Amino acid sequence: MSKVILTGDRPTGPLHVGHYVGSLKRRVELQNSGEYDKIFIMIADAQALTDNADNPEKVRQNIIEVALDYLSCGLDPAKSTLFIQSQIPELCELSFYYMNLVTVSRLQRNPTVKSEIQMRNFETSIPVGFFTYPISQAADITAFHATTVPVGEDQAPMIEQTKEIVHKFNSVYGETLTDPNILLPDNKVCLRLPGIDGKAKMSKSLNNCIYLSDSEADVKQKIMSMFTDPGHLRVQDPGKVEGNPVFIYLEAFCRDEHFERYCPDYQNLQEMEDHYARGGLGDVKVKKFLNNVMQEELEPIRKRRKEFEKDIPEIYRILKEGSEAAEAEAARTLSEVKNAMKINYFEDQALIQEQAERFASDK
Amino acid sequence: MSKVILTGDRPTGPLHVGHYVGSLKRRVELQNSGEYDKIFIMIADAQALTDNADNPEKVRQNIIEVALDYLSCGLDPAKSTLFIQSQIPELCELSFYYMNLVTVSRLQRNPTVKSEIQMRNFETSIPVGFFTYPISQAADITAFHATTVPVGEDQAPMIEQTKEIVHKFNSVYGETLTDPNILLPDNKVCLRLPGIDGKAKMSKSLNNCIYLSDSEADVKQKIMSMFTDPGHLRVQDPGKVEGNPVFIYLEAFCRDEHFERYCPDYQNLQEMEDHYARGGLGDVKVKKFLNNVMQEELEPIRKRRKEFEKDIPEIYRILKEGSEAAEAEAARTLSEVKNAMKINYFEDQALIQEQAERFASDK
Repeated sequence: MSKVILTGDRPTGPLHVGHYVGSLKRRVELQNSGEYDKIFIMIADAQALTDNADNPEKVRQNIIEVALDYLSCGLDPAKSTLFIQSQIPELCELSFYYMNLVTVSRLQRNPTVKSEIQMRNFETSIPVGFFTYPISQAADITAFHATTVPVGEDQAPMIEQTKEIVHKFNSVYGETLTDPNILLPDNKVCLRLPGIDGKAKMSKSLNNCIYLSDSEADVKQKIMSMFTDPGHLRVQDPGKVEGNPVFIYLEAFCRDEHFERYCPDYQNLQEMEDHYARGGLGDVKVKKFLNNVMQEELEPIRKRRKEFEKDIPEIYRILKEGSEAAEAEAARTLSEVKNAMKINYFEDQALIQEQAERFASDK
Repeated sequence: MSKVILTGDRPTGPLHVGHYVGSLKRRVELQNSGEYDKIFIMIADAQALTDNADNPEKVRQNIIEVALDYLSCGLDPAKSTLFIQSQIPELCELSFYYMNLVTVSRLQRNPTVKSEIQMRNFETSIPVGFFTYPISQAADITAFHATTVPVGEDQAPMIEQTKEIVHKFNSVYGETLTDPNILLPDNKVCLRLPGIDGKAKMSKSLNNCIYLSDSEADVKQKIMSMFTDPGHLRVQDPGKVEGNPVFIYLEAFCRDEHFERYCPDYQNLQEMEDHYARGGLGDVKVKKFLNNVMQEELEPIRKRRKEFEKDIPEIYRILKEGSEAAEAEAARTLSEVKNAMKINYFEDQALIQEQAERFASDK
């Protein structure tokens, strides 16, 4: 069986370093591993509209940002199919039929949906499209016969829902859909980077993100203003490493070699953390080190982005080509689904002939 | 503004005389009135699957029955576009986007959905597709810019839901969709004929329906075995007219002229009912009269059906042609919808140019 990846992002803003360490970097590694037969990367505009129906302009303007971030990070249209969800109508049709295989109470029990509803303060006024998006995700995943879905642990219930739909569909209509597996990040700290203000989540509205598209100066300014241990007032005071965003970022970004280059006082992060914990290491020194480490990682991404930004029509061409390839794949799956459900009446010569004979013999 | 009708039926069984007096007969009159610019008649197989997902064969086998009933009753493919819902993928896409404009609690308050859930004993295990079918109906109606939806009073909340979606869509994305109006039956008794067993609803599983496709002998046998007033034991006893299925059927079917032909003892139904009420009129006589009246109405339908049954492939050809015409119409509307939502990125030269300029000036 061929190995197929499906993953993607909602285009509600440019991508930040949390996206990068949490999924993008890994995605590029998977792409370049040569282990996968097909890789589909979806810009999930239709899903973004489920809770942004009043503000389609936000989604519309951010598709290009996400596409630029993808390409700058090394996603390569020659190896990965980059496409826009709304341009694949077959996904809506698959969703439509999968909705018959899931109960309302099953959706209500989905922990991801539950927590996202809470996060958005939806309570009783949840848009139906948002409530049902686990079904739409099942359509996205199965449309490409994805075997592997690289996502965070918080998305595990969504993959569970997809697996349930696959099993239900195959048992009712016959073996048709592919059962996908979740691929979790291999690095715990990368699961979710906090905001630079120390808040658990980076969010555009909190203005606490470092974006992949931020300039060198912006990144530096954001790192130098980062929230650290509020009890660490003087350099000689003992500092807290745990929950300290600067150290969480270091854990996600730095490697031993960085110390040699930018901070030869320490051999590795453990030594630096120990010093910080016992007192005598100032925040500014740690932040400067983090800045060097992050600039090294972000500089080539930024450079590539500037290049890609020079030809915006070309980016849309790439997305169009990817969307056409994705649609061809989804159309094949939809046709398999409709054959399995036997709702392809006009092509179904057996049906037509069998009924003609039945009516003839009724006379 | 052109006048457009959209209506249809779920293909879960052949149509019965309740469908006929409740909607089909009227539909043919509306078709032949010349007052409508376009008439779309939908065989709602996709909707039928929302609560028959486990039994697609039932839906698949009954599409031809409904189509034959339509044609036999006088729906004319030259005047009305007969089509199969599942063959119009654009309807799924419209549903998908309308789902963002309706809240879960709004759906839960829909009285039609509430009572249908009760009727089907779904309670907590309602399939999502069934729960959301008012949104799918809004897609069906708006896809054709229908101005007029001839349905029973029980469907009024569904039309209300469609109107809400139209208003919401137009206010968020700009004037795009057409606001439909319900057209109620003009004859109260025709709203819902009881079963021949006196139960409120005709239902295949209760085996209490008279089908349009029943033979003359079957119709007669069913009428002669009809439930009447159980207190009307001897001919001379007073009988109850109210709630008596035989009289309800007569109210739906007979005209004064029928008495001259088949029961000249009375001038009209009122006289017959009065006699039954005061006693002295036997059930058999009334039933024989009803049989004559109904056979007169059903005979030409049956005859036409026999003709149409001779060429089943031709019926599928009609449905295919209708589905293609309906899809062209729905595709036009979907394109208007996507333009209004501005999710037609690849055709949107203004977007691409504006973004190209923005990135150029950012440098």
